[in-house]
Amino acid sequence: MKIIIINGPNLNLLGKREQSIYGNQSFEDYLKQLRSEFFDFEIDYFQSNIEGEIIDAIQKVGFIYDAIVLNAGGYSHTSVAIADAVKAVPAPVIEVHISNIFARENFRHISLISSVAKGSIIGFGLESYRLALLSFSEK
Amino acid sequence: MKIIIINGPNLNLLGKREQSIYGNQSFEDYLKQLRSEFFDFEIDYFQSNIEGEIIDAIQKVGFIYDAIVLNAGGYSHTSVAIADAVKAVPAPVIEVHISNIFARENFRHISLISSVAKGSIIGFGLESYRLALLSFSEK
Amino acid sequence: MKIIIINGPNLNLLGKREQSIYGNQSFEDYLKQLRSEFFDFEIDYFQSNIEGEIIDAIQKVGFIYDAIVLNAGGYSHTSVAIADAVKAVPAPVIEVHISNIFARENFRHISLISSVAKGSIIGFGLESYRLALLSFSEK
Amino acid sequence: MKIIIINGPNLNLLGKREQSIYGNQSFEDYLKQLRSEFFDFEIDYFQSNIEGEIIDAIQKVGFIYDAIVLNAGGYSHTSVAIADAVKAVPAPVIEVHISNIFARENFRHISLISSVAKGSIIGFGLESYRLALLSFSEK
Amino acid sequence: MKIIIINGPNLNLLGKREQSIYGNQSFEDYLKQLRSEFFDFEIDYFQSNIEGEIIDAIQKVGFIYDAIVLNAGGYSHTSVAIADAVKAVPAPVIEVHISNIFARENFRHISLISSVAKGSIIGFGLESYRLALLSFSEK
Amino acid sequence: MKIIIINGPNLNLLGKREQSIYGNQSFEDYLKQLRSEFFDFEIDYFQSNIEGEIIDAIQKVGFIYDAIVLNAGGYSHTSVAIADAVKAVPAPVIEVHISNIFARENFRHISLISSVAKGSIIGFGLESYRLALLSFSEK
Amino acid sequence: MKIIIINGPNLNLLGKREQSIYGNQSFEDYLKQLRSEFFDFEIDYFQSNIEGEIIDAIQKVGFIYDAIVLNAGGYSHTSVAIADAVKAVPAPVIEVHISNIFARENFRHISLISSVAKGSIIGFGLESYRLALLSFSEK
Amino acid sequence: MKIIIINGPNLNLLGKREQSIYGNQSFEDYLKQLRSEFFDFEIDYFQSNIEGEIIDAIQKVGFIYDAIVLNAGGYSHTSVAIADAVKAVPAPVIEVHISNIFARENFRHISLISSVAKGSIIGFGLESYRLALLSFSEK
Amino acid sequence: MKIIIINGPNLNLLGKREQSIYGNQSFEDYLKQLRSEFFDFEIDYFQSNIEGEIIDAIQKVGFIYDAIVLNAGGYSHTSVAIADAVKAVPAPVIEVHISNIFARENFRHISLISSVAKGSIIGFGLESYRLALLSFSEK
Amino acid sequence: MKIIIINGPNLNLLGKREQSIYGNQSFEDYLKQLRSEFFDFEIDYFQSNIEGEIIDAIQKVGFIYDAIVLNAGGYSHTSVAIADAVKAVPAPVIEVHISNIFARENFRHISLISSVAKGSIIGFGLESYRLALLSFSEK
Amino acid sequence: MKIIIINGPNLNLLGKREQSIYGNQSFEDYLKQLRSEFFDFEIDYFQSNIEGEIIDAIQKVGFIYDAIVLNAGGYSHTSVAIADAVKAVPAPVIEVHISNIFARENFRHISLISSVAKGSIIGFGLESYRLALLSFSEK
Amino acid sequence: MKIIIINGPNLNLLGKREQSIYGNQSFEDYLKQLRSEFFDFEIDYFQSNIEGEIIDAIQKVGFIYDAIVLNAGGYSHTSVAIADAVKAVPAPVIEVHISNIFARENFRHISLISSVAKGSIIGFGLESYRLALLSFSEK
Repeated sequence: MKIIIINGPNLNLLGKREQSIYGNQSFEDYLKQLRSEFFDFEIDYFQSNIEGEIIDAIQKVGFIYDAIVLNAGGYSHTSVAIADAVKAVPAPVIEVHISNIFARENFRHISLISSVAKGSIIGFGLESYRLALLSFSEK
Repeated sequence: MKIIIINGPNLNLLGKREQSIYGNQSFEDYLKQLRSEFFDFEIDYFQSNIEGEIIDAIQKVGFIYDAIVLNAGGYSHTSVAIADAVKAVPAPVIEVHISNIFARENFRHISLISSVAKGSIIGFGLESYRLALLSFSEK
Repeated sequence: MKIIIINGPNLNLLGKREQSIYGNQSFEDYLKQLRSEFFDFEIDYFQSNIEGEIIDAIQKVGFIYDAIVLNAGGYSHTSVAIADAVKAVPAPVIEVHISNIFARENFRHISLISSVAKGSIIGFGLESYRLALLSFSEK
Repeated sequence: MKIIIINGPNLNLLGKREQSIYGNQSFEDYLKQLRSEFFDFEIDYFQSNIEGEIIDAIQKVGFIYDAIVLNAGGYSHTSVAIADAVKAVPAPVIEVHISNIFARENFRHISLISSVAKGSIIGFGLESYRLALLSFSEK
Repeated sequence: MKIIIINGPNLNLLGKREQSIYGNQSFEDYLKQLRSEFFDFEIDYFQSNIEGEIIDAIQKVGFIYDAIVLNAGGYSHTSVAIADAVKAVPAPVIEVHISNIFARENFRHISLISSVAKGSIIGFGLESYRLALLSFSEK
Repeated sequence: MKIIIINGPNLNLLGKREQSIYGNQSFEDYLKQLRSEFFDFEIDYFQSNIEGEIIDAIQKVGFIYDAIVLNAGGYSHTSVAIADAVKAVPAPVIEVHISNIFARENFRHISLISSVAKGSIIGFGLESYRLALLSFSEK
Repeated sequence: MKIIIINGPNLNLLGKREQSIYGNQSFEDYLKQLRSEFFDFEIDYFQSNIEGEIIDAIQKVGFIYDAIVLNAGGYSHTSVAIADAVKAVPAPVIEVHISNIFARENFRHISLISSVAKGSIIGFGLESYRLALLSFSEK
Repeated sequence: MKIIIINGPNLNLLGKREQSIYGNQSFEDYLKQLRSEFFDFEIDYFQSNIEGEIIDAIQKVGFIYDAIVLNAGGYSHTSVAIADAVKAVPAPVIEVHISNIFARENFRHISLISSVAKGSIIGFGLESYRLALLSFSEK
Repeated sequence: MKIIIINGPNLNLLGKREQSIYGNQSFEDYLKQLRSEFFDFEIDYFQSNIEGEIIDAIQKVGFIYDAIVLNAGGYSHTSVAIADAVKAVPAPVIEVHISNIFARENFRHISLISSVAKGSIIGFGLESYRLALLSFSEK
Repeated sequence: MKIIIINGPNLNLLGKREQSIYGNQSFEDYLKQLRSEFFDFEIDYFQSNIEGEIIDAIQKVGFIYDAIVLNAGGYSHTSVAIADAVKAVPAPVIEVHISNIFARENFRHISLISSVAKGSIIGFGLESYRLALLSFSEK
Repeated sequence: MKIIIINGPNLNLLGKREQSIYGNQSFEDYLKQLRSEFFDFEIDYFQSNIEGEIIDAIQKVGFIYDAIVLNAGGYSHTSVAIADAVKAVPAPVIEVHISNIFARENFRHISLISSVAKGSIIGFGLESYRLALLSFSEK
Repeated sequence: MKIIIINGPNLNLLGKREQSIYGNQSFEDYLKQLRSEFFDFEIDYFQSNIEGEIIDAIQKVGFIYDAIVLNAGGYSHTSVAIADAVKAVPAPVIEVHISNIFARENFRHISLISSVAKGSIIGFGLESYRLALLSFSEK
């Protein structure tokens, strides 16, 4: 099974910013753990702070990969264009968020991605990604 | 580990209503599968159509169980009182929804439970419950 | 033909409260008249102040009765859960209101039941129930 | 008893438009049935696509007829002026709608006529008119 | 000086409707008084319940009369088209209302005519018309 | 007849500010004209930039004068307290505005004074005051 | 004088939840104090997490007791049905809240009970109940 | 090909009103040009200031013409009834506007016609009509 | 114990305005009663119609008195500045209202003072002040 | 005449996505047709999924080309920055949309581009582009 | 250069209230520093808690001083009247705020002063005043 | 002291666009002046029309520079992602705007950057940048 994790803006700062909250583990380190746990999956990774590059990525893999795990970060709440890309490709997209977006500022309570995703996993910290991958696992 | 699954209004009709959409599996049947997969968990189950009985249940187990998996159904969108109960108890509460509530009517886009839950898993069908249980599993 | 009339909160006070407005006839008395007029119908009656018991009632009869006449009272304007129950059962549901809810407070102008009911009859006093039954009669 | 049925814009197309939904019966045909069922009523009929002509009609009959059955069609949602006319005349006005306006577009959920009508009957197809007439019948 | 008074929907019922409030004087009677008080003005009068006929009237006189006194009744609150007509003609338009529209229902608090009128006189009963005419008088 | 004109904030700048628009006539000069035209009225005048002093003035004269002509300026749109004072006194209050408040910024479209005033005269320049006085004149 | 205190959802957890904030006194203990201070009152007590049971209680005592002290907890902000019950019974109802609901989340700023209660006492901690009882005392 | 151009309120004033902006060409003159350019089309024309007459026109031609070019003027923003007529007839309707309605007052930003039209052409001056006709031309 | 009662705009009219509703007792008379009932308190009194003088008063006593009882009248609903003053001083402030502000116009449903006050007592007539003082009494 | 067509996000997928709806023609193929039909125009083409690259393109050509045909796709509804670029350059910009954005989700009903474009052509499928080019053609 | 600093409500408490946040420096002390740094400016100072006195001050100096530095405190968010005064005088007005009003309660996010001020400086603590003065300095 | 000025979309057109308003000075020219005035600062400069590149820049310098002066242009009003970047880095960010955004279209009145910036300087033309730098200077 071929899967890509796509991370949006500022998620490249994990492990570097506000370490007391987010810990000092970078996403790259966490990714290694995931790859070793899900050794039978091929897990690609892409991060960009640029909205359009995220769209490019979704378009490129969305016709050939088995699934996309997408954390669009701040763009989740404003990007009609990313949501359109999600809707345009056949691959199922799982939306994940590290923090509980519903317990934060009002403008984070609505994600434009949610309604076009297959499902959403929100608020489990980095474990949100692991649960997303588990949703593709055999029982 | 001692966990309870609490289901809200109309979820007792699973397997009986709109079978072409929801399948003909009742939640009780699905629960058997879950219990056999998570054999090292003690999984209790409670369903009620009555808002206050759901509050009663959360209060009763919330000080003694390890976790609550809660699908408050239609009450998710209107019940300040259930959200207050979730906030009042020490046990972590995982919110699950079978359908993608963000792809349905406007009044289902906001869940009052979300902001006080530990995390939310939305839109994976019955598998939402399984992912919730997996969030408590050892890696 | 087997029909149930389900009355929601505070409708058990008819005949007792504000008699100058509502008259001193209780719903039970009015029901006798209805049963004698529609002698070829089997007319059951259920009243509860508890939202979830109304849901229970809809679920119980909604798969076996021919029709439901529902006045959900104050829950009409707030209960996603009752509306979900109405949508879940095959029996047609007629919504009735005694008073003209559109001529009262703003929060009574929208009924969540209306969009899922077969039809609505509003503002004819107790005669709203009679018209609802007439909708099932042969011409 | 002298009653008038007033139909607003586009209701003259019944039987001609979207026949798979509305059937191929014109309102004139249906009116014949009503007149024969309610043979002891004198039932007039008026239809216009012009808002002001509907007001003219309400003003003309509203002081001399016993009742008005009004389906203001699309004007129901926008016409303060028709609602003012309804309020200005002594004859009771029953509002009817063929379709369930609450299950359609948002702008159809509010009828300005409702709050000034004696009662509303909504969503029973052409039978809405028959129920309106029955509301004037002796029990 | 050549002036026209244009009255909108339901204002033809003055003297006939709710006499305890509006008195039993028709607008025609009141007009006679105005004409005798303002004997040096030529005062035309037009009333229609039809929005478009009011527009026709404004267009016809708006290029040749000295002023228009307009009470658009219920159309004041909904008619972009009448407001456009007022804006399109060179004659100054004075908006009048008999009742205090700001002390009535919310939907009467905004008049689309106001922003394009030269001035508004609101709430003085029939005397609102007299004040409008006085605004054209020599000091 | 004893009348007071009460002017609110910034109206003391008339004749001094933006002379190309408002002319170079101060309100005091205009008042002289009014007093000479309405020689049989006793016309007092009060201006203050202080909301509470306007309330003081309304309270002081509102039980003993025959009428109040009130231009509350910028406070018209924000002062519940002035509106309460208007409602509390027996003297009728006529609201006037020099400019057409409906053709300006959105926050000027609603006046809290309007609903409690006897009537409103808006947009006739300084002549709004004259029309207000004329509303008290014998025909 | 016969009075009942009715407590809504989650108020049964007082003394047990968040002790650093609410203290470790249960409502039952506090009630003993109240009864001894107001020894000439007969003070009943009812608590339920179920909206409809609160309505049942109001209906049962509302025609025979002298007064009701009501803290509807989370239902205060959502229950049209409880507000209807308060309006339906002759006994005066005093609304109390332990915390300052206006200093909390937006959805707690509006209580549907307030407009139908005789008065509201908000934010004095448990002393809110004592003040409510004092409102019935002789001076 | 048989086409009708239907113009709504105030469009009969073209060439007469605000000539510095709209030029001094009447729509009738412009129509001559269109007819000569599209000599193989039969182009009818109808204008009315009356909402209901526009509906009448749409109903009359909408079952027999090949297409309708509709500029509903000020009614575009308020008329549910015209939109219903557009939806009811089989002929495709092209919506045109002379001015850029999105660059004008807020209440002009939403056209109720747009969602039921085949397409919209907005802001090209009179050329909007020509583009509408070109949309029916062979490439 | 040293306490001040601060009354806002129009409260100086008590006993004079609408006597059938408010009675003919002035606040000064009522104050005498309060002072004699609470003879062990030193009770100062200040009233002003001027928003800023209320702020001055709060600032002057707020650092040296034991408590403030504040009825800001109409300013309650509009004054950020008074609320800021309440927040700035160490003395606890009890908000009182004579009438039930929640049962009146919409713009009275929100008090900016409430969220910064220690507690609110609303709707008990003049007795609201007495309950406020009782909140400071020993049990 | 030198013109550029600028396409925004996801428009590069035409012919590939949802072929049953959009057909299997890519935009590049369609462009060939356009170029051959408008052989006397020089037609450039630019597509990007990146908002800022669209701004770059508008800035680069906007001072030297004769016109821009812009379909900003999903950015139409969210990009203040693209609208600012359109306003900043002297070249006229025609906005086109393939689908009828007014018949889709609410968030697509408002385009920030519309108010600064010269005109808009919406809902004609790919033919929207052709009509845009025709707007530049000699009659 | 002659400049006045005008401070609104509660700013006279600086140095006295919440010293841990605002420090123990009064505005008068800070003013001394400013005057010594900007020794070639004549810097007047005025503070009032009374909205109308701030308007008086703006009117008095606004025609004769070179500039006004205005911190209207809580009135910034509610005072149409102060904004009108700013617009009425020729002297440029710089708006300053000590705290970041955008990071506080919603009702502080909009300042009515901003749109009529020459510029705004927000969130630099007392240094906001210094930056305002620097904006008048020669480079 | 090491500072970077980051300019967002369309700010590269300064000096080229609407010269009558913005003058013919490019930002680069202005920057030379700033650097010579603040010769003891190291002032870097970055401009991009691409939202994500602005995020990249903030991330790159935000951990190593002493301060960021940010004019995010049109992205100020829509970019949650840039605001998140500002919050994520330790360097203080000063928000500047050349024009008075509060005196322009409604959608420019709210900047998402403001609440996370250290302070905002708005409306001083290019001098806004100079004031931002002065905020870092020794007194």
